[in-house]
Amino acid sequence: MSDPRPIGVFDSGIGGLTVVKALRDLLPGEKIFYLGDTARVPYGGKSASTVERYSLEIAEMLMEENAKTVVVACNTASSVALAKLEKHLPVPVIGVIRPGARAALATTRNGHVGVIGTRATIKSGAYERELRALNPQVRVSVCASPLLVPLIEEGWLDDELTDRVIARYLGPLVHQGIDTLVLGCTHYPLLVHAISRALPKTVSLVDSARNCAMAVKKLLVQSHLSAPAGNSAGLDIALTDAPDIFLSVARRALRLEIGNVQLREVLHSAPIAAR
Amino acid sequence: MSDPRPIGVFDSGIGGLTVVKALRDLLPGEKIFYLGDTARVPYGGKSASTVERYSLEIAEMLMEENAKTVVVACNTASSVALAKLEKHLPVPVIGVIRPGARAALATTRNGHVGVIGTRATIKSGAYERELRALNPQVRVSVCASPLLVPLIEEGWLDDELTDRVIARYLGPLVHQGIDTLVLGCTHYPLLVHAISRALPKTVSLVDSARNCAMAVKKLLVQSHLSAPAGNSAGLDIALTDAPDIFLSVARRALRLEIGNVQLREVLHSAPIAAR
Repeated sequence: MSDPRPIGVFDSGIGGLTVVKALRDLLPGEKIFYLGDTARVPYGGKSASTVERYSLEIAEMLMEENAKTVVVACNTASSVALAKLEKHLPVPVIGVIRPGARAALATTRNGHVGVIGTRATIKSGAYERELRALNPQVRVSVCASPLLVPLIEEGWLDDELTDRVIARYLGPLVHQGIDTLVLGCTHYPLLVHAISRALPKTVSLVDSARNCAMAVKKLLVQSHLSAPAGNSAGLDIALTDAPDIFLSVARRALRLEIGNVQLREVLHSAPIAAR
Repeated sequence: MSDPRPIGVFDSGIGGLTVVKALRDLLPGEKIFYLGDTARVPYGGKSASTVERYSLEIAEMLMEENAKTVVVACNTASSVALAKLEKHLPVPVIGVIRPGARAALATTRNGHVGVIGTRATIKSGAYERELRALNPQVRVSVCASPLLVPLIEEGWLDDELTDRVIARYLGPLVHQGIDTLVLGCTHYPLLVHAISRALPKTVSLVDSARNCAMAVKKLLVQSHLSAPAGNSAGLDIALTDAPDIFLSVARRALRLEIGNVQLREVLHSAPIAAR
């Protein structure tokens, strides 16, 4: 059995394109529909109930695109809205938290994992919960790193000032003795070189984008939802506001082929939220 | 004649509280209703049409609070939405661009003015237009400074890293020969010490918050809209999403007495937009 429908992917903005890049590398035969909520980006500083409402509205738009699964390519939305999305959507939902937590536990040798992310992701405690559910003995150290997304959007990817900001955020985690660091925001893979420079060689990085893509592949195979051979693979991108400078940063840094970008209005009625 | 109704003030977030602070200092007898669109903050990276729509929706909410005038305490919204607000609102509208431009021209001696602001404000060209309309001979140098708001929201107000980012943004403007710098974002007065450190003593700062408050005072007097003596002055604050860390930064840095903060839902129908 196979399923030609697209994989639906959403993020608050364009950071989730790192997940799309990983999906295209891993599943070249799949069609992908990506929806970025750029009219309301970022989710990372907003309250849990607002992020939950926005996520339901955006996921409903993916349902209208006939998505066979919804990938929440946003750590903030995965942290606070996954349960609600799973309850309301008629298709399987995959977030970035669980795959990242699993990969971190498979990587750590000393049982001490660090997590960086937006304020909302860190405040939600989602990674700690997921890590402890999988291994109650794990030690977790976290740090909200709200300046990293604006630095990425400014395009300062290999820059001494960015290195200094990263060093300030990561210093305490390294001092506390982590040997594994989860990049808990889909923007952060664009800073992978700068983050590596700030860490001792003994600390391993876990990229939630790549691990999420591997989880999607596993789900498609297990649920017989993979695309048929000869499927018209491709990437469609829609945004809720006109694309800004970061789209060109992402295009260049990810070497992702991005064609026309559509504009979509958010459906505020959010019928699934009321069900 | 006098008018006891509140002055309505709005901003994309909480940065506009610098304007509220200036209004309270200058007009202690006035009631103020402040509305921050924190559910959709920031406006600074979004498209002009989205900022226009959001501004109309928020201004309509101020009309329901019976505001006697609407102060657009947001440079981005003032840059791209002022004409539409003036057309649709039944009360006088005051933005931050014109008062800032007037003050800059009154300050400059060599006729060369610099402007810093968000990407959307700078891209709109609103300050250049306003400055050139008032004095066609003026030279204007601009710089989008998108990292300053996140640095302020992180609370790094007096910090060597913030100083380095500011130096990078301002260096080219100083090199080009400005003698006056407009702080074209209502957050920036919180960085006034850091910005002063980055500039030669020959460069004067123009704070759009304070100049906007002076324009409001003038308008109220000229239009006979000032509050009557013995008016129940006070500050009401409503936000479209739960307040985040920056509210405490603003409270401390501005020494502003902020009581209970209300939560309001955005009215998406935006009836005035359709008129």
